Amino acid sequence: MREDDEVTAGSGATREERRRDPSRVLALTDGVFAIIITLLVLDIHVPELSAHETLQSAISAVRPSFIGFVLAFIVAAMQWVGHRDLFALIRYTDRGIVWLNLLALFTVCLLPFGSALLSRYYEDPLALRLFGLILMATSITRTAIWAYATRRRSLVHEPLDRASIRSGLGLSIFPLVVYIAAFAIASVSPQASLAVYASAPVLYFIMITLLRWRAPRGSAERQFT
Amino acid sequence: MREDDEVTAGSGATREERRRDPSRVLALTDGVFAIIITLLVLDIHVPELSAHETLQSAISAVRPSFIGFVLAFIVAAMQWVGHRDLFALIRYTDRGIVWLNLLALFTVCLLPFGSALLSRYYEDPLALRLFGLILMATSITRTAIWAYATRRRSLVHEPLDRASIRSGLGLSIFPLVVYIAAFAIASVSPQASLAVYASAPVLYFIMITLLRWRAPRGSAERQFT
Amino acid sequence: MREDDEVTAGSGATREERRRDPSRVLALTDGVFAIIITLLVLDIHVPELSAHETLQSAISAVRPSFIGFVLAFIVAAMQWVGHRDLFALIRYTDRGIVWLNLLALFTVCLLPFGSALLSRYYEDPLALRLFGLILMATSITRTAIWAYATRRRSLVHEPLDRASIRSGLGLSIFPLVVYIAAFAIASVSPQASLAVYASAPVLYFIMITLLRWRAPRGSAERQFT
Amino acid sequence: MREDDEVTAGSGATREERRRDPSRVLALTDGVFAIIITLLVLDIHVPELSAHETLQSAISAVRPSFIGFVLAFIVAAMQWVGHRDLFALIRYTDRGIVWLNLLALFTVCLLPFGSALLSRYYEDPLALRLFGLILMATSITRTAIWAYATRRRSLVHEPLDRASIRSGLGLSIFPLVVYIAAFAIASVSPQASLAVYASAPVLYFIMITLLRWRAPRGSAERQFT
Repeated sequence: MREDDEVTAGSGATREERRRDPSRVLALTDGVFAIIITLLVLDIHVPELSAHETLQSAISAVRPSFIGFVLAFIVAAMQWVGHRDLFALIRYTDRGIVWLNLLALFTVCLLPFGSALLSRYYEDPLALRLFGLILMATSITRTAIWAYATRRRSLVHEPLDRASIRSGLGLSIFPLVVYIAAFAIASVSPQASLAVYASAPVLYFIMITLLRWRAPRGSAERQFT
Repeated sequence: MREDDEVTAGSGATREERRRDPSRVLALTDGVFAIIITLLVLDIHVPELSAHETLQSAISAVRPSFIGFVLAFIVAAMQWVGHRDLFALIRYTDRGIVWLNLLALFTVCLLPFGSALLSRYYEDPLALRLFGLILMATSITRTAIWAYATRRRSLVHEPLDRASIRSGLGLSIFPLVVYIAAFAIASVSPQASLAVYASAPVLYFIMITLLRWRAPRGSAERQFT
Repeated sequence: MREDDEVTAGSGATREERRRDPSRVLALTDGVFAIIITLLVLDIHVPELSAHETLQSAISAVRPSFIGFVLAFIVAAMQWVGHRDLFALIRYTDRGIVWLNLLALFTVCLLPFGSALLSRYYEDPLALRLFGLILMATSITRTAIWAYATRRRSLVHEPLDRASIRSGLGLSIFPLVVYIAAFAIASVSPQASLAVYASAPVLYFIMITLLRWRAPRGSAERQFT
Repeated sequence: MREDDEVTAGSGATREERRRDPSRVLALTDGVFAIIITLLVLDIHVPELSAHETLQSAISAVRPSFIGFVLAFIVAAMQWVGHRDLFALIRYTDRGIVWLNLLALFTVCLLPFGSALLSRYYEDPLALRLFGLILMATSITRTAIWAYATRRRSLVHEPLDRASIRSGLGLSIFPLVVYIAAFAIASVSPQASLAVYASAPVLYFIMITLLRWRAPRGSAERQFT
């Protein structure tokens, strides 16, 4: 299962293997995602009742926060599942992967802010656009890691065929297109823009299912999650 | 210990094994649980003393928050222990397990909100019911993963016999029944409802002990924690 | 290195090994400690300047929070190092270890509250006593895990001799004695009580150094951290 | 790949190996870094609009927080990458490494406070100096671990040659020099001081690239990330 032919011979060989091991990159990434999806709930504040107010009416005021939480949770979950699928292909890291991954984590860290902004101002085109910019940034960094890693023979477990690389690229770029559409119509119709953002995970889910359906047995996209 | 007969032959075999490895699912899950049980304490605020107030009286005002923290900590601990027991049986993940597990994490992420709501409005039937709905959701997702995983031969280390599957299902469904009871009586008697929620971990503990007692040597339920 | 003679023969053998594997217990524990030591800093708030106030005077008002952070960080670090030393001896978990460890995490989770309370009311005997109670609870649960695990032959990698078990018990109980002393004098002299709490890590560090010095080569206490 | 010749013979050998295993030190460290880079974003608050204020003007008031977040994220990422590079060389921990690493985590935990202070008072020399002191502390502890570990034959996988040890020391000390410069000019020109802090990651990145360029094939600095 291990192919050591890529590694330079000599005293530095195993040292280089240890340096390029992805385990700590994954530990940091899983930690960041665990915190992000948990922090998102902190924006759902327990309401303080004013006089003559029932808990029921106060709770219904929490609804936008709850919808923001659900939306951001799904986006973060999609990103994590995509990250897991990608790194199941990656055997070694290099300087580029480590820093691209940190850049991806940077964009993921902005999700709680974007989600909180959207919960508070879900009818304001600017809030919808900033939320969209953060989502686009997560998709762009994910696409960049995919393109970077799958083209470098020394980083992956097994070389991917061209069709698999293209499918993976398409899967990373696809949400980007949806987000751009939602971004574009934000000032025309905030409601429609919000609906498009919310539809992205559903469309993404359908697209993966189609890819798995069409993919030949044993190919990389066959196991996209 | 490893049985590789399930895996399709050919070039995709080891790739599929890596894809189905549960380690990152566990890393994310343990991270989320670690954060949840730690975040719960953030609801216990250090009191600010007003004039003519002693710290003693201020501290006693913290008591509901503390009880809410204890209750939610125990619920989260029960969920984590149950998750650990279940995934000790699971050898491989698939798309269903990954997304069901994310759904389970989603319900667990709502616990701090439910606990904060209960601490603040522990005499309000609506707060008791919302807390109950969150607890029910955690139980339902746990039951769903158990039912999904134990019936798929390719996901578990060893096939479970029917009695073990039934015991595990019972153990997942049991708290659900208690929560539904507490939910039902919330408007009749908030105090009784709270007491039933608080009794769930005790009853659950007793039930596991009985299951371990009765289970034949070497069966799955013998090692329930 | 692995001794499998403890495990019951038959079809349940490897299942039992997986169930008793401590890795997820350690993952949860490391996660909780990582969050606790990081959350502690959140109590150091960036001051808001009122009119005619310089940042310098505002910053010096932050000092009690900073001292509380340092004290709680050291306590949490001591607990983590002790936990790591203990679990380096433990090969398998059982139901008792898992729940005792969750109880230990419960007490550790209270540290940020205790530290925030102490930072705010460091001259109030009640705050000093509550901080002391939390510290005692962390020591008691640690002692309980040590006593539980080291006496069960099936849980440890190698049986510990009586002298090592006693040294480890002493090391767990020792901070407890210091905390009780600080608790006792809290109402007589808050300053002295605070000084005793602060001295505990120093005394503990000296005690470990002495234990390592005296311990025979190859014994468990030789490698206490 | 494993060289066991360093370990003392006898019954304590494998126990000592387990005690000195760095895995839990790395788990705690990755957890702390994951939390730190995620907490930083919590300082970017969703603005509350006052009357006659547009979201656009309110968002632009968030800019200093955002810049503080970016700066602190990059510093934390640099520290984590440096930590990963260092611990790829380390095979075993000892008491010194464990406590030095906890000291390093202590300094990293102060980053969110420093970043929040800088975001709020970026024109105040005192805030710039406190931020600088925290950065210096992170560099000093990193340098201390490097100096401590690379000189002890029993802690590293393979002995490092003198040139590699010197390069690594230089790389750890270099940001320290930049931070001291920024600290020194804080009262003369806050803007220039801030610019120097912001330039540190860029200079550091260039320096690593040069080190990798010049380093002989197979040497430790060849794989600095």
